[in-house]
Amino acid sequence: MNAAAEPRPVPDDETAGGETTAADGRRRQARGRTTRRKLIGAAVESLAERGWHATTMLEVAERAGVSRGAAQHHFPTRESLVVAAVEQLGEEQITELRRRADELPPGRARTPAVAEMLLDLYTGVKFRAALDLWVAASHDAGLREVLVPLQARVGREAHRVAVELLGADETRPGVREAVQATLDLARGLGLANLLTDDAPRRAQIVRQWARMLDAAV
Amino acid sequence: MNAAAEPRPVPDDETAGGETTAADGRRRQARGRTTRRKLIGAAVESLAERGWHATTMLEVAERAGVSRGAAQHHFPTRESLVVAAVEQLGEEQITELRRRADELPPGRARTPAVAEMLLDLYTGVKFRAALDLWVAASHDAGLREVLVPLQARVGREAHRVAVELLGADETRPGVREAVQATLDLARGLGLANLLTDDAPRRAQIVRQWARMLDAAV
Repeated sequence: MNAAAEPRPVPDDETAGGETTAADGRRRQARGRTTRRKLIGAAVESLAERGWHATTMLEVAERAGVSRGAAQHHFPTRESLVVAAVEQLGEEQITELRRRADELPPGRARTPAVAEMLLDLYTGVKFRAALDLWVAASHDAGLREVLVPLQARVGREAHRVAVELLGADETRPGVREAVQATLDLARGLGLANLLTDDAPRRAQIVRQWARMLDAAV
Repeated sequence: MNAAAEPRPVPDDETAGGETTAADGRRRQARGRTTRRKLIGAAVESLAERGWHATTMLEVAERAGVSRGAAQHHFPTRESLVVAAVEQLGEEQITELRRRADELPPGRARTPAVAEMLLDLYTGVKFRAALDLWVAASHDAGLREVLVPLQARVGREAHRVAVELLGADETRPGVREAVQATLDLARGLGLANLLTDDAPRRAQIVRQWARMLDAAV
């Protein structure tokens, strides 16, 4: 990959010259948002498929079909790009959970359904992308510095949604920890699913976990 | 790092020429075992500190204070070295668990003590090394091929010891899954401990988990 210095090209979505009208400005902003979204999507894809080491700005720009200059205009560093990617992954996860919350059955069937939702949470390509970043950050102080506060924020948000979904009363002793354990277990199951399809084993754990959670929450 | 072809040097521990006596043979074998042990230790260290990408045979040989030729005599490929390293990590883990089993308190205090032992299992540098390999294997079919059967074997062994420690009766419904969930939770907690010290939060989860496990097992 050619990392040699080159004159910084004018970004694709910032080519307006001279006076601009309000409509021009809005169009430019919309193009900018589209470019950002493409870059974030390409970064997640590259992280999941090829890992942090291979996820260079050039690789991401090419996947996104965006010039390198435009990519660097939006994200001056790889770190700034992955921060945006992790934020988006976290938001998508929360949105998806809330969407599925509307489909949950009432009564006794609710806890097993929530357990399944939560314990399946980290079994996909997005978790693989995030995991790759975590591990890279364990060898890279710069990446760690941006990821740690982000991870804490995304984790708190996931916890809040899990409490809502379970209808759990966290003022009762042990309930908060049982919900936390559910999310930690979910990440452990995500790890177990990384190299092989662990779905059959996981389904049995989900059933048992739902019983234990029902008794605890 | 220089990966150019070079004549393969005579390994350090195989320099005997001409006729050898039985004593020479034993000495050579002992030296060979020491070299292997050094290389495995250096590989684990390098994986934990710098990751799979930086863990070249040259890096490991230098850390171990062994010539590159001797390293390649014992482990012709990086893959064969990490297989040996993962096997050793697994064995050390089991040995450590059995050793600590003798110190467990009897009666009602046993389950919390076992829960703590198991949930602390993946919070150290060895888990970091294994995790790095898992993630690298998710992008590398050759590494995946050697790690998947190994991971299954090490996982089964850890499960067997967990059952023993808990004195769990796996013929009762749900008990097997509760023990599996304990080890998956332990790996999830290992992940949560990767970038920050998660010990205070983990201690509270351990307490609650011991209660849930006691009721289930």
